Amino acid sequence: MRTIEWHSGTVKLIDQRQLPHRLVIEECTDHYQIAQAIKEMHIRGAPAIGVAAAFGLALVAFHSKASSPHELLKELEEAALVLRNTRPTAVNLFWALDRVLAKARSNEGNLPSLKEAIIAEALLIAEEDVETNKKMGAFGATLIKDGYNILTHCNTGALATVDYGTALGAIRTAWEQGKRIHVWVDETRPRLQGARLTAWELKQLGIPATLIADNVAGLLMRQGKVDIVLVGADRIAANGDVANKIGTYNLAVLAHHHGIPFYSVAPTSTIDLSIPSGEHIPIEERDATEVSHIEGIPIAPEGFPVYNPAFDVTPHRLITGIVTEKGIVYPPFDINLRRIVEDS
Amino acid sequence: MRTIEWHSGTVKLIDQRQLPHRLVIEECTDHYQIAQAIKEMHIRGAPAIGVAAAFGLALVAFHSKASSPHELLKELEEAALVLRNTRPTAVNLFWALDRVLAKARSNEGNLPSLKEAIIAEALLIAEEDVETNKKMGAFGATLIKDGYNILTHCNTGALATVDYGTALGAIRTAWEQGKRIHVWVDETRPRLQGARLTAWELKQLGIPATLIADNVAGLLMRQGKVDIVLVGADRIAANGDVANKIGTYNLAVLAHHHGIPFYSVAPTSTIDLSIPSGEHIPIEERDATEVSHIEGIPIAPEGFPVYNPAFDVTPHRLITGIVTEKGIVYPPFDINLRRIVEDS
Repeated sequence: MRTIEWHSGTVKLIDQRQLPHRLVIEECTDHYQIAQAIKEMHIRGAPAIGVAAAFGLALVAFHSKASSPHELLKELEEAALVLRNTRPTAVNLFWALDRVLAKARSNEGNLPSLKEAIIAEALLIAEEDVETNKKMGAFGATLIKDGYNILTHCNTGALATVDYGTALGAIRTAWEQGKRIHVWVDETRPRLQGARLTAWELKQLGIPATLIADNVAGLLMRQGKVDIVLVGADRIAANGDVANKIGTYNLAVLAHHHGIPFYSVAPTSTIDLSIPSGEHIPIEERDATEVSHIEGIPIAPEGFPVYNPAFDVTPHRLITGIVTEKGIVYPPFDINLRRIVEDS
Repeated sequence: MRTIEWHSGTVKLIDQRQLPHRLVIEECTDHYQIAQAIKEMHIRGAPAIGVAAAFGLALVAFHSKASSPHELLKELEEAALVLRNTRPTAVNLFWALDRVLAKARSNEGNLPSLKEAIIAEALLIAEEDVETNKKMGAFGATLIKDGYNILTHCNTGALATVDYGTALGAIRTAWEQGKRIHVWVDETRPRLQGARLTAWELKQLGIPATLIADNVAGLLMRQGKVDIVLVGADRIAANGDVANKIGTYNLAVLAHHHGIPFYSVAPTSTIDLSIPSGEHIPIEERDATEVSHIEGIPIAPEGFPVYNPAFDVTPHRLITGIVTEKGIVYPPFDINLRRIVEDS
């Protein structure tokens, strides 16, 4: 199945907290359940949470007892507020909500037609995501040569999207093209998305890969065992600064120091032209227990202070290029990102 | 109590695997138990395992049924082989064994006098370690200004030594001098010595500190929240290259990129002039389960390949200075390290 699916009035999603041990499918029938699933990271990954939020609005439309289009629009706007207040960093969440709301507002038909339009738009966002990922995969794969060792961080695979993935989609495409590759999988503390999710996906796909503690990246680069670094993105500012999973910036500095190309792979929906640079991107700080406990077991003295930012910002000057579904963007990012977003 | 203590024929040591949850004291009465305690990291930290190995030979001397000095020497040499084959990277282990063996070989007295000399030498190494750490602490503290945020990695405190610590000893000295400081504690995957041991020690000492995932270091440096990086060392080559806990090299590159001073704090017994550069230092690779499991719970797909080097090498050009018990060594390290080691 896909990471998230619409089944007429029910949203089915993989509860990613249970992987790699158990494949648990969760069913949501209202937007509060979706909001909780996003907030508590049953579903995560910038594109996936965008689609989840859109499906949250589709659930409102499907189950609404509103008696007029106007009343339904009010319900949608309230639901969008709840969905917006889940996670602050990935812009795809807001992008998807705004897109569904805009579609709803522009609808001039009766109530059934409005409901249909909302559900159709959410489904379209989900379908487009898969198409977008396949296009990014094709562009990204051109960067991966036969024999390459690729280092990746967090999870950017099918689980982070509706299907196929962003950075992992590029790796998957290269593999499907017959290139002999090997992937270094950063475990990605604190949530361990690399160990839990990326490793699981690569195992399913049969792509050769090795799990490492995040601390090992520098050693591998110094030994010449990393040819390229591919990561995703949660929000890209107009100047090309990239917010992504905490630890991405460490990798970018290390790659720069060793002269290794560093690419972010993300759909244009992740680009936020309204934000001039990375310092304006809100960075989510998550619960201390993500660091102090693993699987509920304490690994630090009780009550010890913890700082747990979920993301960091990599400045554009450390980024070789940004792979989108419309092509690979190179510096100067301020000009070229705007061009690719506005070109439709 | 100290991390490791001699009690006429019994060595008591803190089983560090149990911290911070339980303070368990382990008793060893032969060198096989000591070897196991080193190999399985009941005791760890370059200076501490040196002392443990010396005490291992002291146990041989204490309990030996040898009928001549010659026979005892044979027993000691066999025991030293067992102790040598525990962990390859930290040179203090070999240094301490060689020092006790040299003392034994040079003894020209009868059997009781030989036994006494061996035990006395092991005890002297332990006592010197505490003195050495206090001297390093005093030199190291001169680098720490009032108001500093210090980033440290792994555990370099009392637990890594007989008492007081190396890098953490410098931090402790600065704190005891009344400087208002704050410590960022890298959790230090995979073994989590930062979260488990350094956090525990800092809490005991009442020094303000915050635990972070290793991935957070770059973000903090970019935000100007790190004034100095202080780490220990497991072996320092003649040219100043430093082998230390995996992830140290990442920190050194990050510190270099941000213009932040980076110091290694280690006794001269950690300097190995027989090795010209870091590439000749053997790097221990440890069991995959250290990465794939935490507290016995799997965090990755079963059987997924893992690469788990326990140490990395930081090239001397990324190191601002090396703090020893004889003073702070600055570049050119090849000249200045030799000078400080040979000056006695």
